[in-house]
Amino acid sequence: MARPIKETMPLEAARRLLFDAAVPLDRSERIPIGDATERVLAQVVTSRVDVPPFDRAAMDGYAVIAEDTFGASAREPKRLRCVGQIFTGEAADVAVTSGTCVEVATGAPLPAGADAVVMVEETDRTGDDVGIHSPVYPKQHVGRRAADIAAGQTVLTPGSVLNPSRIGALAAMGIGEVEIYVRPRVAILSTGNEIVEPGQALGPGQIYDINRFTLASIVGLHGGEAVVYPAVPDTLPALTQALADAGGADIIVFSGGSSVGERDLMQDVIASRGEMIFHGIAVKPGKPTAFGRVGGKLVFGMPGYPTSCLSNAYILLVPLLRRIARLPDYEPRVVAATLARRVVSTTGRHQFYTVRLADGAAVPAFKASGDITSMSHADGYIEIPAHTDIVEAGTIVDVKLL
Amino acid sequence: MARPIKETMPLEAARRLLFDAAVPLDRSERIPIGDATERVLAQVVTSRVDVPPFDRAAMDGYAVIAEDTFGASAREPKRLRCVGQIFTGEAADVAVTSGTCVEVATGAPLPAGADAVVMVEETDRTGDDVGIHSPVYPKQHVGRRAADIAAGQTVLTPGSVLNPSRIGALAAMGIGEVEIYVRPRVAILSTGNEIVEPGQALGPGQIYDINRFTLASIVGLHGGEAVVYPAVPDTLPALTQALADAGGADIIVFSGGSSVGERDLMQDVIASRGEMIFHGIAVKPGKPTAFGRVGGKLVFGMPGYPTSCLSNAYILLVPLLRRIARLPDYEPRVVAATLARRVVSTTGRHQFYTVRLADGAAVPAFKASGDITSMSHADGYIEIPAHTDIVEAGTIVDVKLL
Repeated sequence: MARPIKETMPLEAARRLLFDAAVPLDRSERIPIGDATERVLAQVVTSRVDVPPFDRAAMDGYAVIAEDTFGASAREPKRLRCVGQIFTGEAADVAVTSGTCVEVATGAPLPAGADAVVMVEETDRTGDDVGIHSPVYPKQHVGRRAADIAAGQTVLTPGSVLNPSRIGALAAMGIGEVEIYVRPRVAILSTGNEIVEPGQALGPGQIYDINRFTLASIVGLHGGEAVVYPAVPDTLPALTQALADAGGADIIVFSGGSSVGERDLMQDVIASRGEMIFHGIAVKPGKPTAFGRVGGKLVFGMPGYPTSCLSNAYILLVPLLRRIARLPDYEPRVVAATLARRVVSTTGRHQFYTVRLADGAAVPAFKASGDITSMSHADGYIEIPAHTDIVEAGTIVDVKLL
Repeated sequence: MARPIKETMPLEAARRLLFDAAVPLDRSERIPIGDATERVLAQVVTSRVDVPPFDRAAMDGYAVIAEDTFGASAREPKRLRCVGQIFTGEAADVAVTSGTCVEVATGAPLPAGADAVVMVEETDRTGDDVGIHSPVYPKQHVGRRAADIAAGQTVLTPGSVLNPSRIGALAAMGIGEVEIYVRPRVAILSTGNEIVEPGQALGPGQIYDINRFTLASIVGLHGGEAVVYPAVPDTLPALTQALADAGGADIIVFSGGSSVGERDLMQDVIASRGEMIFHGIAVKPGKPTAFGRVGGKLVFGMPGYPTSCLSNAYILLVPLLRRIARLPDYEPRVVAATLARRVVSTTGRHQFYTVRLADGAAVPAFKASGDITSMSHADGYIEIPAHTDIVEAGTIVDVKLL
């Protein structure tokens, strides 16, 4: 028989239960740094080398003993004898002694004996005779060994998200592979006898699967690995088997089957095989949402209506997934806009109301929970708290961008 | 000979030249919608089907002729004879006539003759005899055919970035594959004789390649396909050959070789094979940056110093790449913070100054342009305009997050 949801849970209470249930993954793997962007570091990274690995010229010019240049001026240059030349990438196999200098390119290692570099612009040269037009102090124009990173220094710690500059720091230390946390595996199962894959022909009473695609898309955007299963018939044995088959995942998301229908059996499956954590939350759209734990896996029963399902994916699945993936909380971009029309909300339910942005105005875009265009034609959404029932036209609202 | 950069171009002027040079790509390809998240649509999408494809029950209950329910109440139910049952996903092969009803599940097609659904909660039943406790109006609790999308309707247009809900709209219409713009190909070439790949041993005078990895990372994050080449020796024939080899790319990025050194030959290569658009911009770090066009390809000569190179990738390459990829401009997240220490900037150069965030304070993180830890240990950066030379401690600054 049909079982209406009698008690709904406030959104914040549901979120707390969700966070309590989320255990960050410990599994890790080793991958090349070229594949590691946006991955989460699972190791301490301590440098085995100095960066840079040697004192080097920071300018094109002449490596000198700084003292030899003291008193130099354009009118009375100090004259030094050039005894060699070092290009970038070469060994410094010539030494500087008092009265001599070595021509160096930017990035070349500083030759033994030298302690500073005179910029080429401050010199003149005839044959091996080099005139120094300006004094330098010791270490001037020298990039010092280990100035960036010293051998033994801890440069990155577990939990760091590898952005381009951190990938660069790994490269700088000569580290070609790195240990990162694996992405949480999210099994995605659409339930229902009416579901057909896009690209196929529809039979009588059939509709195309939407939630499998929206869920996989959002999971991929938030650090998860979507594992997509064929649609599951809406029967207790089929759902129970599907749950068992998806046991290799960290999160299992069923869509459809958590409403109140006769064949909507997801809550029975969760309750009979494990523990229901909540069923029914005071949000709109997306009230008939179940969340539980079965065999150590977290299981969502999302509503079948595509906008309800995707809305709940944004507000519940994404925070859970990112926590398990050890990614920082996602904060959508917010744009202030003037509400173009009055919006009437449902008292007692926290509403996520989709809007389009047009010339600084937020124009209501929500049609119905069953309509994917409620969201696909929207730029973002406004949140209307449970205790508010009307937001008047002209109100400045915060639009969170999709 | 060394050639100092005499004239630098203000950042905004350089950016304008960059935007003028950027031509959005026209090449497109067809891919499954499951792979299309964050891709840019290259076609008009017009629906060939109605979504939903039939009138359907929006509640579990009984499909009825609304008129048969008028006057019904819990005390005096209207009695109808149930002549069948339609589950979700089934054909509606039974019709409703006056005095009868058909049991329907949410999502099931509405049987012929019926024009409304009475919720199961508003009924009683004994055998085939169903009591209706509350009247319904025509179309009540019916999800109408084409309410979401009508056949012939244009749902998405070229240039749309495919977020989860738009992927869902494609699925809803039964569209399994979609035409999207290809990602711009960005050839990445580190130049210099001193460059060694991470994972290998360093010889005398050698350093690890950093820019190849930071550039590939940032290109991947902003809609490009990085094509990484081996490091190129810093000689005119090698650079000229490398430029020819990378001709299949849409953007070619050399790093190193745009400074003023004797072997820093990138600007010669660009100027001799094509057209230099600018060389030298009034920014810090990153002044010695060259940008030109060779054989219809856009070519960057980025500075070799890793923080200079990556900083310019953020401020110049990313906007160019996104424009060519037809992605919206990237706007970094901004956090307001109190500057923890006075920062002295270089007058006449727009400075990008990296900072860490600690307890609401922005703590300077910049060491030197050659130090990748100037950026990898930072959370974001502040911008100091060319005409400002000092920002005092305690100033509220906008930190743009990396």
